[in-house]
Amino acid sequence: MVHRPPPGTLRPQGRTERVRQAVVSATRGLLAADGYDALTIERVADAAGVAKSTVYRRWRDTAGLMMELMREVAGAAIPLADSGSVDEDLRVLAIEIVKFFSGTSGAMVLALVAESVHNPDTAAGMREFWAERNERAAIAVRRGIDRGELPSEVDPVEVIRALGAPLYYRMLVTHEPLDDVVAARAAAAALAAARAGTLSRSD
Amino acid sequence: MVHRPPPGTLRPQGRTERVRQAVVSATRGLLAADGYDALTIERVADAAGVAKSTVYRRWRDTAGLMMELMREVAGAAIPLADSGSVDEDLRVLAIEIVKFFSGTSGAMVLALVAESVHNPDTAAGMREFWAERNERAAIAVRRGIDRGELPSEVDPVEVIRALGAPLYYRMLVTHEPLDDVVAARAAAAALAAARAGTLSRSD
Repeated sequence: MVHRPPPGTLRPQGRTERVRQAVVSATRGLLAADGYDALTIERVADAAGVAKSTVYRRWRDTAGLMMELMREVAGAAIPLADSGSVDEDLRVLAIEIVKFFSGTSGAMVLALVAESVHNPDTAAGMREFWAERNERAAIAVRRGIDRGELPSEVDPVEVIRALGAPLYYRMLVTHEPLDDVVAARAAAAALAAARAGTLSRSD
Repeated sequence: MVHRPPPGTLRPQGRTERVRQAVVSATRGLLAADGYDALTIERVADAAGVAKSTVYRRWRDTAGLMMELMREVAGAAIPLADSGSVDEDLRVLAIEIVKFFSGTSGAMVLALVAESVHNPDTAAGMREFWAERNERAAIAVRRGIDRGELPSEVDPVEVIRALGAPLYYRMLVTHEPLDDVVAARAAAAALAAARAGTLSRSD
């Protein structure tokens, strides 16, 4: 007898969701163990105990799997400090970004960045991911504006971009080292630029 | 009879250099026509009229060819304005960076960035390339310091990093659009951060 939920009941743990969770967890595990280059649909299907055809149909390729993992990471809360000082909260945020990129999830995001240079689907997924992510991080800046620590014309998302950009620049472009001093400097520079009126909304 | 230069004469156009130029030009042409993914040692050797074994021995793989092309780009002069105003010179530099990345050489650099995420040799090559490149661009900042437009403690290379970072961030991470307004804003924000003392030398 097939188990059916009562009509009208939501099934957060339905078969589709269970398959998704198994595939996400298998992708994460293989990625941590062997890196992106060794990731294949076959290995993920094997590790997840799911039919290869199911994985192909739903995620198509490894880039699709990576985007799924990305949505999982996006769902996780950003550890936003709320110290009462925007300078302190953004310093902590920059340090958290550096810490994030020394872990498995960070390696995954860097692999997706590399993929997005050649793959327009990944690029579109990244655009969406970061728009949502930066909007959420911008809450820390909005609080600072509300407290009068920053001019009201400041564009909160642009401050988050300015804070993150020097960190990604070192990781991706110049391959220069990253540490808490570099992170704190990125936050301080973004705030100085905001206070000087160079990161204001254009409208 | 084999042509030999007189003893002691420099041969800037010797066989080694002629092969290098043919290979660089073939790589550039194939890249512009079909993109990085279609680039192979075989196709480059064919297009350059050079033995495959020669290309393999000297450049090993497509990443090696890309680094050679990169050195060629690095050798080209950075179009640095010298208007007498550091604000104007950096605004022009940021706009030149945006323009560069809409062309073939820009696409090549982005392909190398993607490669450098997975390939430590490319990452090391990139580190060297950007160190040299940013040092040269920093001349515009040094002139501004000499003219008293910026505090003498400012780290000139850090200003160049701060100017470039938001542009690479949009190209590589968030895939948000780039234009002259974004470029001018990046330059203005870097200068504001420098004047506020957040981009000073740590020594």
